[in-house]
Amino acid sequence: MQEKEALAVQDLYADEFSWCYGCGRLNEHGHHFKTRWHGDHTVTTYTPSSTHTAIPGFVYGGVIASMIDCHGTGSASLALYRKNGHEPGDGAEPPRFVTASLNVNFVKPTPQGVELRALGTIHEIHPKKWQVEAEVYADDQLVARGEVIAVVMPSTFAQK
Amino acid sequence: MQEKEALAVQDLYADEFSWCYGCGRLNEHGHHFKTRWHGDHTVTTYTPSSTHTAIPGFVYGGVIASMIDCHGTGSASLALYRKNGHEPGDGAEPPRFVTASLNVNFVKPTPQGVELRALGTIHEIHPKKWQVEAEVYADDQLVARGEVIAVVMPSTFAQK
Repeated sequence: MQEKEALAVQDLYADEFSWCYGCGRLNEHGHHFKTRWHGDHTVTTYTPSSTHTAIPGFVYGGVIASMIDCHGTGSASLALYRKNGHEPGDGAEPPRFVTASLNVNFVKPTPQGVELRALGTIHEIHPKKWQVEAEVYADDQLVARGEVIAVVMPSTFAQK
Repeated sequence: MQEKEALAVQDLYADEFSWCYGCGRLNEHGHHFKTRWHGDHTVTTYTPSSTHTAIPGFVYGGVIASMIDCHGTGSASLALYRKNGHEPGDGAEPPRFVTASLNVNFVKPTPQGVELRALGTIHEIHPKKWQVEAEVYADDQLVARGEVIAVVMPSTFAQK
């Protein structure tokens, strides 16, 4: 699959919702996580920088948690977008989700200098609330499992 | 309490374990989270930067998750250190923990420009495994609840 050439959902968020430190395309200092369809699953790839250290040689868990967080909201957005009849590239704006909860189990130390892949499995709880299960791989090693409950951005996030 | 003047556990980790992107004093690019005793509880304070955005005006959840992560390992380290008869400043090196699991519930949107306080309640599971419950406040508002299971750093993290 040419997943790296497909549009990511973060390429499609409205400008005002594209400043996220994890995945906002307009945040110069952020991670720029990108989440795409991968069949009926989703994938986010990211190579942590050399400064994203836990113990030297291993990736900081907070960066892995961040990756799972944005992978979760991005996956939920793609899922509701598809449910509403849209695919990336058709010109519609995808819904913006926020994270209600984030759980991460660190399965083994994550080596630095390796591209990480988060694979997502998405379950609808109801149209405004989705569960995203994530498995994070470094090469072919499962290094973390996560779960995000993502909800459509409530109006409390609107700027005054 | 003069908690900001007390030594933080991250000031006491051995140099080789002080490169964490979250809390390592030697990582120039990291957050520099600092965890201190607060009676029988622990506290980590941190003011996210203006780039640590989720939606403009609100703090990125991945940074809050990162804060809870290092607050958890730091709190567990302080607890085992105290159990072993040590207090920050007595010259002994505290044990270094890593995170086995991290759970975060985002209670409400977290405003930017406010100092965050994570308060920790620590439970021993066994001497090498501790549970740390965290409540994160922005001013007097509870914005997130978290739980970390922290384990003494296993030998798999040793550099070759």
